[in-house]
Order: sequence, then structure tokens, then C-alpha cells
Amino acid sequence: MRTELCDRFGIQYPIFVFTPSEKVAAAVTRAGGLGVLGCVRFNEADELENVLQWMDENTEGKPYGVDIVMPAKIPTEGTSVDINKLIPQSHRDFVDKTLADLGVPPLPEDEERSEGVLGWLHSVARSHVEVVLKHPIKLIANALGSPPKDVIDQAHEAGVPVAALAGSAKHALRHAENGVDIVVAQGHEAGGHTGEIGSMVLWPEIVDALGGKAPVLAAGGIGTGRQVAAALALGAQGVWMGSAFLTSAEYDLGVRRESGVSVIQEAMLTATSADTVRRRIYTGKPARLLKTKWTDAWDAPDAPEPLPMPLQNILVSEAHQRMNESDNPATVSMPVGQIVGRMNEIRPVADIIAELVTGFEEASKRLDGIRES
Amino acid sequence: MRTELCDRFGIQYPIFVFTPSEKVAAAVTRAGGLGVLGCVRFNEADELENVLQWMDENTEGKPYGVDIVMPAKIPTEGTSVDINKLIPQSHRDFVDKTLADLGVPPLPEDEERSEGVLGWLHSVARSHVEVVLKHPIKLIANALGSPPKDVIDQAHEAGVPVAALAGSAKHALRHAENGVDIVVAQGHEAGGHTGEIGSMVLWPEIVDALGGKAPVLAAGGIGTGRQVAAALALGAQGVWMGSAFLTSAEYDLGVRRESGVSVIQEAMLTATSADTVRRRIYTGKPARLLKTKWTDAWDAPDAPEPLPMPLQNILVSEAHQRMNESDNPATVSMPVGQIVGRMNEIRPVADIIAELVTGFEEASKRLDGIRES
Repeated sequence: MRTELCDRFGIQYPIFVFTPSEKVAAAVTRAGGLGVLGCVRFNEADELENVLQWMDENTEGKPYGVDIVMPAKIPTEGTSVDINKLIPQSHRDFVDKTLADLGVPPLPEDEERSEGVLGWLHSVARSHVEVVLKHPIKLIANALGSPPKDVIDQAHEAGVPVAALAGSAKHALRHAENGVDIVVAQGHEAGGHTGEIGSMVLWPEIVDALGGKAPVLAAGGIGTGRQVAAALALGAQGVWMGSAFLTSAEYDLGVRRESGVSVIQEAMLTATSADTVRRRIYTGKPARLLKTKWTDAWDAPDAPEPLPMPLQNILVSEAHQRMNESDNPATVSMPVGQIVGRMNEIRPVADIIAELVTGFEEASKRLDGIRES
Repeated sequence: MRTELCDRFGIQYPIFVFTPSEKVAAAVTRAGGLGVLGCVRFNEADELENVLQWMDENTEGKPYGVDIVMPAKIPTEGTSVDINKLIPQSHRDFVDKTLADLGVPPLPEDEERSEGVLGWLHSVARSHVEVVLKHPIKLIANALGSPPKDVIDQAHEAGVPVAALAGSAKHALRHAENGVDIVVAQGHEAGGHTGEIGSMVLWPEIVDALGGKAPVLAAGGIGTGRQVAAALALGAQGVWMGSAFLTSAEYDLGVRRESGVSVIQEAMLTATSADTVRRRIYTGKPARLLKTKWTDAWDAPDAPEPLPMPLQNILVSEAHQRMNESDNPATVSMPVGQIVGRMNEIRPVADIIAELVTGFEEASKRLDGIRES
């Protein structure tokens, strides 16, 4: 399974995997794909530096990338103390009451409180860029559209291509005009921030709109080799995955049972494809999340309207921390795509990648049979 | 492009096309697919009988099917006079005011008023079944899930297989248990009634859940041969299309310009994939519609909640008639899928089918290149 992107990136398969776990990112890279480490959880440059050093030591010299989060426009800049003043008390009260109703325990006294997505502020994201460019990264992706022009230029000067997510042909074209090298066409099915247009319609639309100006990675709904075949049949040059690796054996974030499976993984293993919702409650922009008692609470008639980005994530940041450190799978907070319905067992990263390749091969041979009979 | 369904139905390509137009249905059948005529617009058995006689005369002895609409459970039965009493006056007032605000002209005095979806009542749908079984139809489809058991039995006694739409694996399995022969897996992208799960995730999920108990037709987002290739790669045995043929040259319903293009077609030719909404305002159940000033009005803060099925369609039926007989493309009422973004020219049915076949072949050959390099 080779496309032009394999030669360009020096990878065996055109499989790009976004993950917040360096263990998963490194395993993807070692298995022949391109692991892309999400940096948003590192508010401190030192933390990120340490993890990238670990990546360098555990990827056998094979290529990997990073994902930073930089909104094209950010309304507020400053410390979390300033921004906190913009959050209404009634929203804070709703969060507190909901957590109490759901029986979510408080954090231990001495634990550091998450301040939310400071990593989305340009100042923090720019410090991420400074750090990552000192490492042999092969891709900088931005999960929120085109990065600012100076960041694209800085990456290009370092010889690093830039990828950006798009949920419409218009956004994809704007990315290409801004100098973005690779467009991730993210369909409605995807976890995290998503638009309205389904992958089946969106992927070929973006491929055709770009007309070769930039290669397209297909995202949203991919978990098996058959879906990789569909993506490539629709004109994508590769796939961009995320959710399907959250139940990989290497994924080690979150509170774990004695079995080694985390509480969040438990929640995902039992969810069906109908158990996600697309809501503004995670960040202020529509994002697909695992449906839980927490998302249900925000759907209730008495729930407030979510705040705009970045306020909403700052509002719920400690709540996410509390829920995800508790041992109740019914109240976790987790972005995940509709492919969660197929995430029914814990598998090593290498096994997931192997199925993507063999499943692709089988599907394309089945099409040969249909074509030639 | 042959699958097992081609032999079973005696068709050249596994392309099933639902359409309310007998001209389109017959053209699809003549071009090697299976045209499926929607019967819901025929409230009188005589009308349907006449159209089926026309179909028999214009399909060169090739197979065609019909689609009837029978909700599995119907809360009310009776004449439209009885049912009308269940519609609140405030809803009627909202419809009247909206039509006035949008400048939609009244119907001519002498024109028959549409009574809405009486065709969905079991009594009417059963009379449709009586009529269609006197013709050489090869498929009875039900756009609203499994038909009642006695209708399935009646079709089987006549040697006619039954197809039903499903938006989840659970519904698909129920259809198979009820004796349905073919499952149409309809993804979120589709026009008309749709569920939440995108085609990329839903199609293989339903294929796997059925495990061969019934073949699957993929629906929702298909307009090109590449999308047919994706559907077959994902395990479907064929495709079920609708929207893409609404801008075929043969489609002759609705008010037409001197050019021969209808007002509704004009609206679809200029719409992008983002110009649809999924709302309960058409029938009472979520259905994807062309986004227009009419759908915007129902999204306004002062709009009432849509009524349950079948009341909502009876409420808006005359409004639909008025809007679709006017000459303003901004106020038509039309179910259509996200593929509308690719419906940018009027083409003969035979040309659309020809592209589906060659586009499929090209896509599957591209996959061969990716597999073998």
C-alpha cells in the first residue's frame, strides 16, 4: 500500500495517526505509519521537550510529527486569571452541581489543577513550535485550520511541511492559499472538532476542489482496512486516524484498572456507533464526544448554552480532570468518532496497522472481482 | 461491474435508483440499473395503475421496482378530516404567516389541495400493494423500515423480494428477522429520512452485523463512480441512490422554466454540500432537506416544534404544494442529500449511469496501483 506520500515522508504506509500518547505515536511510527503527537496537553515547554526526547529515542530514526492547536483567530490572550473573569458564575454553578449530582469525586488537595487549553493561546502554541523545531519532526499539523502565516513560514524554513484540518472545500482551498502543504479532510463522523458534511461526500469534494494543489488525508470514520480502501478510492492520498488508536494496548493515559485497561478505554470498548454526540460543550466549537452522563447533563433543558472558545474549555477543564481521574466509565469526558462502535478490544498498535494493510488489500481485490466479472 | 445482485435481479449493474418520477425510473432500468418508483405521491389507486402501465410499456421488459411508505407503527388511521383535528391552530398560523412573509402565492382556486401523506396510512399503502402486485415488479421497498409482516408475506407469495431502509445495525437485524430480503443502509449524508451515523461507519457495520443474512445496498452520499467503488469496498453488494437523479434530464416533476429546467432543479444546481439541513419539519421524523428560506423559518426562535408523524406532513402539505408551484427557487421544499453539492448540471440518466460505471472502474484500478506498488 504505497502512495506518493510514502516517498515524501519516508514511511511504509500512508497512515497518519494523531494521538495524545507518545507511546502510541512512537509505536505507529515503528510500525510503518507516521505517528503525530498531540501537544495541546503540554502547557509547559519543558514537559514537551522531555517527551520529544523520548520520541527521538524510541522511533528508530523513523519519521514522526506533532500536532499543535492554534485557532486562526483568538479573541483573548493572557493568563488564565484574566480569562477566568469572562466566565459567568451561573456556568460555574451548573458545572459544580452536575459533578455533585453525578457523584464525581473532587481532586486530591495537593494535585495541580488543569488550567484548560492555554496550549491554544498563540503564545503557548508558538513556544511549542520553538521546542518541536529543535527535534527531527517531519510534520506540523494544526487541528484548528491554517496556522498563522509566520508559523507556516517558520516550519518551511526548517524544511517541515504543515498539515491543517478542513471540514469544507472552502476551508481546504484557504489552507492551500495560506501555504499549507497537506489538507486533512475531516468528515462529520470524526471525533473532536468536526463539521456537518459526511466523509463520503466531503473527501472527494476536497480532493477535487484542491485539484492537486495539496494532497488530501481522509479523516472521520476510519478504523479498518476496508475504510482505508474507500478513502483511497475516493481520491485521498492517505488516511488520518485518531480514535481507533485510543483502545490500543500502548495507550497509557488516564486512570487504569489492575487489568491495565483504563476507565476511559472501558467506556469506549462498550460504546456503539450511536453513542457519540457532536456538541459545543468541550471547547466552544462543535466537537464529537463520547455520549456519557456528562454530555446528557448538558443536553438537559436546564443546561446553559456553552461558552465560546476558549472560555468553554477553561470552564470545564477541571471537571474533565475530575471525571477522568474517577473510576466511573459513565462520566468520562472524551472526544471520539463514530468508529468507536468498532473499537471493541484492546489491540497492539502493530496489529491495528497490520489489519489496515491487509484489509485494504482484500477490499481492493474484491473490487477487482466486481470489475472483471 | 457485477455483483451477485445483478444475477438475482437480472440487471446489468448493481445500481438501484429511488425516484418519484416514472420517466427517471424507466430510464434507469433501460440503462441497466433497477429503477424504483416512489408511490407515496399517488393517493388514488387509479393514478398509480396508470403510471405502472406506462412503466410496463417503457422498460423494454427489463426489471423495475416500487417504493411504498408504511411506518411500522401508525398512531392514527382515518380520513384526513379526522387527522386534521389533531393539528394545533398555532401551527397552522405559523405556516400561513411564514408563507405570507416569504411571498409564496396561493394555489389557484380550482386546483386540488394536497392532503399530505395519506399514502403513509396502512389502508392506502395496502391498496398500493394490491395495485403493484398486478404488474411485473421485481422489488418492493419501504422507505420507513420493515413493512408489516402480512405485506412481506404477500410480496413473497408473488415472488417479489422486499427491501427496507436501515440507519443502524439494530434496525438492519430487525429487518432481516422480519423477513426483509435486502437492507438499504442509509447514512447520515442521505436525503430524506436519515439517522445520525455517517455512511463510512454505517455501511460496513450493517454488512458485518447481517453477516450474509441479507445483502446490503449502500445509500447516503453516492453520486459518482468513486463513491460506488467506496461502497463496494466497504462490503455493500450494490448502491441505492436518489438525489443524484433529481437533476437528470428526464426528471419532469415540478414547475419548469422555458429552458426545461424546473425551479426545484435550479435550486439544487446551485446548492453546495453545506446547503442541506436535517430536520423534523417535513414529516415529523428527521429528514435531510435542501436548506431554503422555508427551513430557515422553522429554525427561527419563534418557530413551533414540529408535530409527530404523520401530523407534520399533513400540516405542511399544502405549503409544500404552494412553494413548489411558485417560481422562486429560494422557497422550494425538497428532500435531498449532501451529494447535492455535486449536482451541478442537468444530465441524461444514461450519462449518470455511464459515469458511475467508468468512475468505479477507474477508482478500483487506482487501488490496484496503490496495492501493487
